[in-house]
Amino acid sequence: MQQTKFLLDEKRIPESWYNLVPDLPFQLEPPLNPATREPVGPEAFAPIFPEEIIRQEVTAEPYVPIPEEVREIYALWRPTPLFRARRLEKLLDTPAHIYYKYEGVSPSGSHKPNTAVPQAFYNKQEGVRRLTTETGAGQWGSSLAFACETLGLDCTVYMVKVSYGQKPYRRIMMETYGAEVHASPTDLTQAGRDILEQDPDSPGSLGIAISEAVEDAVKNDDAKYSLGSVLNHVLLHQTVIGQEALEQMELAGEYPDVVVGCVGGGSNFGGIAFPFIRENLKGNKDTRIIGVEPASCPTLTKGRYVYDFGDTAGTTPMMKMYTLGHSFVPSGIHAGGLRYHGDSPIVSALVHEGLVEARAYAQNPTFEAGVAFARAEGIVPAPEVTHAIKATMDLALEAREAGEEKTILFNLCGHGHFDFSAYEQYLAGGLVNLEHSDEEIERAVAGIPG
Amino acid sequence: MQQTKFLLDEKRIPESWYNLVPDLPFQLEPPLNPATREPVGPEAFAPIFPEEIIRQEVTAEPYVPIPEEVREIYALWRPTPLFRARRLEKLLDTPAHIYYKYEGVSPSGSHKPNTAVPQAFYNKQEGVRRLTTETGAGQWGSSLAFACETLGLDCTVYMVKVSYGQKPYRRIMMETYGAEVHASPTDLTQAGRDILEQDPDSPGSLGIAISEAVEDAVKNDDAKYSLGSVLNHVLLHQTVIGQEALEQMELAGEYPDVVVGCVGGGSNFGGIAFPFIRENLKGNKDTRIIGVEPASCPTLTKGRYVYDFGDTAGTTPMMKMYTLGHSFVPSGIHAGGLRYHGDSPIVSALVHEGLVEARAYAQNPTFEAGVAFARAEGIVPAPEVTHAIKATMDLALEAREAGEEKTILFNLCGHGHFDFSAYEQYLAGGLVNLEHSDEEIERAVAGIPG
Repeated sequence: MQQTKFLLDEKRIPESWYNLVPDLPFQLEPPLNPATREPVGPEAFAPIFPEEIIRQEVTAEPYVPIPEEVREIYALWRPTPLFRARRLEKLLDTPAHIYYKYEGVSPSGSHKPNTAVPQAFYNKQEGVRRLTTETGAGQWGSSLAFACETLGLDCTVYMVKVSYGQKPYRRIMMETYGAEVHASPTDLTQAGRDILEQDPDSPGSLGIAISEAVEDAVKNDDAKYSLGSVLNHVLLHQTVIGQEALEQMELAGEYPDVVVGCVGGGSNFGGIAFPFIRENLKGNKDTRIIGVEPASCPTLTKGRYVYDFGDTAGTTPMMKMYTLGHSFVPSGIHAGGLRYHGDSPIVSALVHEGLVEARAYAQNPTFEAGVAFARAEGIVPAPEVTHAIKATMDLALEAREAGEEKTILFNLCGHGHFDFSAYEQYLAGGLVNLEHSDEEIERAVAGIPG
Repeated sequence: MQQTKFLLDEKRIPESWYNLVPDLPFQLEPPLNPATREPVGPEAFAPIFPEEIIRQEVTAEPYVPIPEEVREIYALWRPTPLFRARRLEKLLDTPAHIYYKYEGVSPSGSHKPNTAVPQAFYNKQEGVRRLTTETGAGQWGSSLAFACETLGLDCTVYMVKVSYGQKPYRRIMMETYGAEVHASPTDLTQAGRDILEQDPDSPGSLGIAISEAVEDAVKNDDAKYSLGSVLNHVLLHQTVIGQEALEQMELAGEYPDVVVGCVGGGSNFGGIAFPFIRENLKGNKDTRIIGVEPASCPTLTKGRYVYDFGDTAGTTPMMKMYTLGHSFVPSGIHAGGLRYHGDSPIVSALVHEGLVEARAYAQNPTFEAGVAFARAEGIVPAPEVTHAIKATMDLALEAREAGEEKTILFNLCGHGHFDFSAYEQYLAGGLVNLEHSDEEIERAVAGIPG
């Protein structure tokens, strides 16, 4: 029997997270205070993050040890399996070898708990009793709810009101894990009340929900805030994915010629890619690293590499990143986790320096790839990761054309069990591609002050 | 780090299914022709099942080899992990050691593909082009849809109309796997048309859907019918669960004092239990084996052990089993997979002979156990398996009272990702216990002709 899955014993859960920053052949540009345009120090984050998280955000250590208690919680689902997609290869009739790392086996169904658990852990260690956060479709909120429950913290989630109504399963999952979930905008915060005063029927937005969650944490001594992507410490925690994958590829007796991940804020992409980028930077390997984004939110492929705000309201420090402008509102595609105007500063710098390639796909071809994948491999993928699947299938078809036995690895960052209404629309022929016109993108990008 | 998961390499997928029947210390009573009350031979099943399935239904071989192609498909998710529920043990402050075998890692999220795949395989081998089946909540239908897609068969699912409307995610999952799904009753079969003529707004029932699926298979040469529980060959295929669990318990260095499973038609229960019952019968071990059912459908605990029909319409051969009467309509509990008036003939005989204990729980305490489990272990369980969890937690608390270090193993047969509306009702305090009164049960049981 040909091998399909490459498993690691839980003793092989990595003992450290890998920090790419000190290995980069260039300096990352620091976050700036928007008023003074001076670099902000770590202390700027003290009202919202615990000390250890702030330390990890700026650390120059190449490896950060994973606390034993975090590894024990990771063991509920880690190491995650690596699959050889033999049935997909056959379907595509390709000489390429396709591998995927499957993060959907976590309790909340995605890679997000990899950072939710350590964030909850460090907060608890520093005496925090409650974490606040925002969530859109609910992947992040349900992961933080799980992590808080596991570590005995309270959890307050501000869920974008339109999603609160449309995605009840994710909301109920958070409540099952004991979290308090509010439809944002609420009347519990000044930010929420201001919005409601202007528009009592506001459907909410991720930007508003962030403002509410941050305000809740800043104004209440028992609480801190937690973010699920973009920042350095989040990507750091996600590197367990790539470290395990490196070991599993060795078990498979292969090394990837290409590593592929979808990119929203950059956390699942960084998680799989950084350990492989390390091998490139050390001169050991020469693997193509490809980030895939939606054509409707083409941050890396059409955005500008400038300083911009991380949130819509413009309240965060400014970060140097690819951005479509912090007021850009991406089309309502189903891959909600990829609808972010900016990108992780590290991932942005890697693209800018040519160490990572970026490509973009429209909505329909990604769902077509997602359905083909589900029919071949069984797992129904989340809409976000269908972007990585589409790129992988294209690469495998190119390998067939070229007659090359390429080895391709992608990160299957989550299952699509809560996304079947999107699949239904696709199967009924009702999905549309939602790219913005070049003019719209140009207008958005031209408006960026940075 | 204390070990949480016990994994097996896919080479350890069992090479045979284990058949308990020849090891039983008593004879199973044969199915009867309802008209003649004479035993029916295997040929009675020929219009609906392929030859190899019929052979397995009546085989006296103790082991049936698993075809290599089936094992290769199993490898997409098998061997499934065995967990030590350390966090649940801590919550219960019990000296008991709790283990669970997790079947929710399959593509459709339950143990059902363990039999769907070989059924599709043998049908394909014998030239069948299409399989028909019924489904209620959709666990079985989505598993057969997956199996058919994987083996290149067409799949037609008659889904109870009320579920078709209320559980759209399961329906869309089947369609994503390429199945054709009809809301039953349909106007495609005589059985369906008869019902619609009487009641154009009929909400459908599992009994009606079975009639439609069987008629479709009988009347069309390209098609056969497939059943997801109750029958001997189905339980045979599920024994991969218990065989793997035996090996994994050995890895854990323990042997269960008690094995627990929830019982609807008996397939996940038989799957985990039969290999352990074998050890009991061989005199090697003395493990308590407990089947858990809903108090609202107390087949094993309050039914009669007599000949009855397998379906509501009374068209199948009669089987000797515990039954509440084939016209009994269980209350509308959320554990839809446990709402069956009868039970597997093998499991029924084991209970009758005292080799298996049965107990029943009302709906609310099982959901309470399910939420406690989700908060401790992360995995949100399907409503069906919360019955096994409730029994396990009770046993662990008894062990605490008695100060005994019992080892308990239960089968976590599926996740609850499509059952969050039930969790929502429970969390809102809106679930009610739906036991039938003793009088209702007595009346139902008294009406059984057998």
